[in-house]
Amino acid sequence: MDVLIVGGGIIGSSIAFELAKRGAHVVVIERGELAQEASSAAAGMLGAHAEFSTDHPLIPLALASQAAFPNVIAELQQLTNIAVGWNEAGMLKMATTAEEHRQLTEHYEFWRRIQPQHVRWLTRDDVAQLEPHVRSEYGAMYTIDQQVDAKQLSVAFARAAMAKGATFLPYTEAYDVVFDGERVTGVKTTSGTLHAEHIVIACGAWTSAFAEKLQLSLHMYPVKGECIGVTTDTPLLRTTVFAKNGCYIVPKANNRLVIGASAMADSFTKTVQASSVHHLLTRAMQIVPDIAHATFEKAWAGIRPQTKDGMPYIGEHPQYTNVFIVTGHYRNGILLSAITGRCVSDMLEGKEVPFDMTPFSLIRKEEDHALHH
Amino acid sequence: MDVLIVGGGIIGSSIAFELAKRGAHVVVIERGELAQEASSAAAGMLGAHAEFSTDHPLIPLALASQAAFPNVIAELQQLTNIAVGWNEAGMLKMATTAEEHRQLTEHYEFWRRIQPQHVRWLTRDDVAQLEPHVRSEYGAMYTIDQQVDAKQLSVAFARAAMAKGATFLPYTEAYDVVFDGERVTGVKTTSGTLHAEHIVIACGAWTSAFAEKLQLSLHMYPVKGECIGVTTDTPLLRTTVFAKNGCYIVPKANNRLVIGASAMADSFTKTVQASSVHHLLTRAMQIVPDIAHATFEKAWAGIRPQTKDGMPYIGEHPQYTNVFIVTGHYRNGILLSAITGRCVSDMLEGKEVPFDMTPFSLIRKEEDHALHH
Amino acid sequence: MDVLIVGGGIIGSSIAFELAKRGAHVVVIERGELAQEASSAAAGMLGAHAEFSTDHPLIPLALASQAAFPNVIAELQQLTNIAVGWNEAGMLKMATTAEEHRQLTEHYEFWRRIQPQHVRWLTRDDVAQLEPHVRSEYGAMYTIDQQVDAKQLSVAFARAAMAKGATFLPYTEAYDVVFDGERVTGVKTTSGTLHAEHIVIACGAWTSAFAEKLQLSLHMYPVKGECIGVTTDTPLLRTTVFAKNGCYIVPKANNRLVIGASAMADSFTKTVQASSVHHLLTRAMQIVPDIAHATFEKAWAGIRPQTKDGMPYIGEHPQYTNVFIVTGHYRNGILLSAITGRCVSDMLEGKEVPFDMTPFSLIRKEEDHALHH
Amino acid sequence: MDVLIVGGGIIGSSIAFELAKRGAHVVVIERGELAQEASSAAAGMLGAHAEFSTDHPLIPLALASQAAFPNVIAELQQLTNIAVGWNEAGMLKMATTAEEHRQLTEHYEFWRRIQPQHVRWLTRDDVAQLEPHVRSEYGAMYTIDQQVDAKQLSVAFARAAMAKGATFLPYTEAYDVVFDGERVTGVKTTSGTLHAEHIVIACGAWTSAFAEKLQLSLHMYPVKGECIGVTTDTPLLRTTVFAKNGCYIVPKANNRLVIGASAMADSFTKTVQASSVHHLLTRAMQIVPDIAHATFEKAWAGIRPQTKDGMPYIGEHPQYTNVFIVTGHYRNGILLSAITGRCVSDMLEGKEVPFDMTPFSLIRKEEDHALHH
Repeated sequence: MDVLIVGGGIIGSSIAFELAKRGAHVVVIERGELAQEASSAAAGMLGAHAEFSTDHPLIPLALASQAAFPNVIAELQQLTNIAVGWNEAGMLKMATTAEEHRQLTEHYEFWRRIQPQHVRWLTRDDVAQLEPHVRSEYGAMYTIDQQVDAKQLSVAFARAAMAKGATFLPYTEAYDVVFDGERVTGVKTTSGTLHAEHIVIACGAWTSAFAEKLQLSLHMYPVKGECIGVTTDTPLLRTTVFAKNGCYIVPKANNRLVIGASAMADSFTKTVQASSVHHLLTRAMQIVPDIAHATFEKAWAGIRPQTKDGMPYIGEHPQYTNVFIVTGHYRNGILLSAITGRCVSDMLEGKEVPFDMTPFSLIRKEEDHALHH
Repeated sequence: MDVLIVGGGIIGSSIAFELAKRGAHVVVIERGELAQEASSAAAGMLGAHAEFSTDHPLIPLALASQAAFPNVIAELQQLTNIAVGWNEAGMLKMATTAEEHRQLTEHYEFWRRIQPQHVRWLTRDDVAQLEPHVRSEYGAMYTIDQQVDAKQLSVAFARAAMAKGATFLPYTEAYDVVFDGERVTGVKTTSGTLHAEHIVIACGAWTSAFAEKLQLSLHMYPVKGECIGVTTDTPLLRTTVFAKNGCYIVPKANNRLVIGASAMADSFTKTVQASSVHHLLTRAMQIVPDIAHATFEKAWAGIRPQTKDGMPYIGEHPQYTNVFIVTGHYRNGILLSAITGRCVSDMLEGKEVPFDMTPFSLIRKEEDHALHH
Repeated sequence: MDVLIVGGGIIGSSIAFELAKRGAHVVVIERGELAQEASSAAAGMLGAHAEFSTDHPLIPLALASQAAFPNVIAELQQLTNIAVGWNEAGMLKMATTAEEHRQLTEHYEFWRRIQPQHVRWLTRDDVAQLEPHVRSEYGAMYTIDQQVDAKQLSVAFARAAMAKGATFLPYTEAYDVVFDGERVTGVKTTSGTLHAEHIVIACGAWTSAFAEKLQLSLHMYPVKGECIGVTTDTPLLRTTVFAKNGCYIVPKANNRLVIGASAMADSFTKTVQASSVHHLLTRAMQIVPDIAHATFEKAWAGIRPQTKDGMPYIGEHPQYTNVFIVTGHYRNGILLSAITGRCVSDMLEGKEVPFDMTPFSLIRKEEDHALHH
Repeated sequence: MDVLIVGGGIIGSSIAFELAKRGAHVVVIERGELAQEASSAAAGMLGAHAEFSTDHPLIPLALASQAAFPNVIAELQQLTNIAVGWNEAGMLKMATTAEEHRQLTEHYEFWRRIQPQHVRWLTRDDVAQLEPHVRSEYGAMYTIDQQVDAKQLSVAFARAAMAKGATFLPYTEAYDVVFDGERVTGVKTTSGTLHAEHIVIACGAWTSAFAEKLQLSLHMYPVKGECIGVTTDTPLLRTTVFAKNGCYIVPKANNRLVIGASAMADSFTKTVQASSVHHLLTRAMQIVPDIAHATFEKAWAGIRPQTKDGMPYIGEHPQYTNVFIVTGHYRNGILLSAITGRCVSDMLEGKEVPFDMTPFSLIRKEEDHALHH
């Protein structure tokens, strides 16, 4: 099999890795450097339990991806020697108001029925014991959700794909497609026209613009996420802390904390707004007061692809069936990367995918779906 | 008049400034930050005399642009308060071999006939007096050619345009055009579809990809130029030194020297090759041996738009006459920016342009032209 | 005359410049790069009127320094070609509470008696007209106080001193003094022992440690000042805005705003605390609400030398009279740089200084003095 | 036991770690950030076999330190979760001239007698097989020498020491010592006077200046080492390549190569000289021609402490016996860090050190020793 992947972020790289392992001839084009957009801006949480609080079509994929990661990471490590910051300390999902407490209780009950071994309710005393620096007023849920260094994981997928024979062309921009009658046979790029049997479009938030060249209107939009990094002399947190209202604090190596994230819809602007820095600090100091004394490091932003119904697009083009669109993972792109690579490879190979992928198809009816958070 | 300019480099910004001054409604879109590509990588020489050694259709524009700069810069300074590093110390064009000496003599003779007051032949003693750190073995020509901080000049054009009412939309990417029958009425961008009476495409090396959406095959290609910066404790040079074989050394503020530039055709890759750093240092130390003791600062690259016949494209689309293409300035983009803004504005207003623009038209026959360096 | 200056910040560089102009043989040693500490972190306000609100021994020097700057800057510009960001738009001193309003009124009355032509009371309407983006609730005072790019000014003093024959030795650290009986004859440095007729210690906040080697206990301490930089698409401010409680917002080139400054006593730690970023943003958004939409750029800190009584130390060592101590300018170092260079040069030359320098002498009684802000 | 360590580089941090493990009360002061000087500039080779070619007093320590590293790194990893880039691929010691070939043969014979299992002679075919990108003309020796990320290892020692109870005070500068009669009781610092039972001076190249406050003339000098980093798309090297004349190329994670190092005696200047970049690239491209196509990343410098006889100083002050001096590791600081921490801890505890430390004592006769490379 011969596949051209447009987009060198974590999704494109994960697909490249999986396909290359299966023996395909793979070329990935990326208009800049690898993993330069949302993939490197992400905080790297693998929040299978933290992100979903009701039945949702993504849950089976999220759990499968999470379960696959230990082996995937061992494999990447062995192939590339890149340290991806694998961290299994788990996640603390906090309620900071009475209403959030009620929602979190439901969230907990939901998971207690499905995976009781992977979630635990924590009293304020439990929180104090687990994370003494956290100011807990309403209790919290513990999940096993891990986290990684998103940028390094993305690069590791790409490097491992190369180790398995894939070719990556950086600074190569796709600007049009080549048709042969009813068939798409290639892509025009700034490095020349590239032909391939199969074409995968995995350009994150920029996918919808490219999809228009294929007469496809994707119902998606960019959502800027802004983060800040701080460091402390001694560790403040062991687990990731995820407040119900969207603020999370992720402990990284060297006593570094990543605090995220804003969500500014319809913005491709990669600048960080002053008010976002202010808001993130306000929230973080509410939850972990000692962050006030932390050293401010820097702020950054990434542009994440969101869809109208909150479901990613993972599927073939309705008309040009050798073209696949894979995008819209919004803030679950790191979590879903491992399984997305496998599912897309299965689909390209004509194998049966062990999940119901119809909610992610390009011809779904959006009104059937909605993300509940 | 209502104009949409695609591209926020020095060419797009200069056109925006001139049009806004003339009262047009101007919107400039740029897919990243202003002046982020070739405009900020350039060494900033205004080499009207140094670049051309025989009759060439660009000479009238180059001389007019050079002559316009003192006023333009005063105007920009007044509107924006940005320091653009205007430097009138002139340029030393060196011969480093006997053959180069012969060519440089011809070059000098060419200009002595046209502008004797602006060029001067220098003996080795003259060079030693003017630039004691330069190792001159074959004589040199002095020209009045000035230089600027290219990045700051680009930003000043943009800011001055804004001061005159133009709107700049950063992080806005054009990915398609909107047709209404035989007419182009707008551009699809990641910030939505923008309509305008006139559309100017000034995307530097990326112009040809966009032009294909308008059924236009531009005969152009990217040429990467790599530079390095060094600093010294005491000034080594007063003038710019331009060796015949392409190496130049440009003295900037704070005893900084910019050493450029490689020319790697067909590369959009913005990385700097190790061998280029090596080569630039080798050449610079040959010409100014004391550069060996300078402090190495950094290396960078820019992607310049070159055309097959070495002429820029400045003109209307053969079919969609409200669309203008302005690109291909290669390494004369900074020099030509002032005059390009004026000429394009004249053309858009239907005024007569005081230069012969046919060599730059989009329907020229290329075989008629060729740059001789 | 033969002078060794320890410290390559703005004070040491200004003294070096003035002495070199007067024909002295000057060597400046600096343990790192020039202007790397407080001199480059400063916001660059020349707040002669904004900083002082009652009689104060520094006022004559502050006014004289401010008056000297236009010529000094022209001279530096001519010698070095460095753009120092000279800005004469003036300063708005804001009251944001009723109590501050009362204090500011007194402040205004103080200056109205001394320099009525240089201060002006502004009603809320006046403020709205002068600075439409400022939220004024209690009126304000306008002063003529200018501002500069502090780092560039420091470097310009140093480069101009070099142009006049001074030698600067970077990465040269003084760690001890050399005595010959009752006389200090030199300084031991990491570049070897350097001898000189006169020695000037101008190490900012690090001066007191070095002074101990000269049996001198200076009553001084470091005060960290933290700042943040933001940029906007269009200018929000013309003048500097200085709120009574210490927050100031200084408009720089390219629509950049510097927001400062915290004051953390007894800290040499050059990190920026998360709570300081939060606090500065809170204050800045109160005063100029549109800063919320500005782009956050970065945060930084500088360590300023403060004395117990708020007076700088400018004078000879009580015992070793060929040693001069010049430090303790706290947040007026940029403002006072021009006059400090002149006064110290006068003192070294044995000339009469046209100011009363006794309040700054090293043998003053501290209890006689105190800064009132 | 109560120990104050002056210097937060790899040596001070390693001593702090070992002492803290043994239950001592440890305070480390560092005038800037941790590991900011030579410790972070080093290429990180653990060249026990590559560095020594004849009998040398450091060999027992070097071998013991190398042997200790696997456990030390596991321990640091477990305590701090910091990835230190441990790499056991070994080292290729190259001869590039006939004369070097002769020397390398002797070098090999030396080690073959001592540790035949850890060195291997390689024919040109062997080299071609092991490292196909290396241009081998005269054969090479393979050693088991590992390498690490020097900066991360230094930080890991410091963080692990903190985890064991040590206190680190950054931005705290020692400028004098406190005597009580014949005894040193403390150190004056910019954070106040700190008292301790034992004082360890481990300031790298800055140690001799501080030692003068203790009436101690150390025969040592700084040696600047400059390095450059390049990256490649595919790995060029598996092992470290160490050419006989001092050029080495160390493969790091993500296809990064560190090329080092110049040796500029008597320089504390942390700038990188243009000629050094040129020279390092020249040498690297000779040895691995494909480096010509690598991407140039950056250049940097570190200041290493060298002694007149090439032996480190590890021992107590001849007069003030509670003061220890530990410095002069030159380019073996990373290699020797593990064992130095242990030996110094033994000495402080009055235990017998399992090595002959007399060659490193502060009262040795220098003429007895000399490093042979």
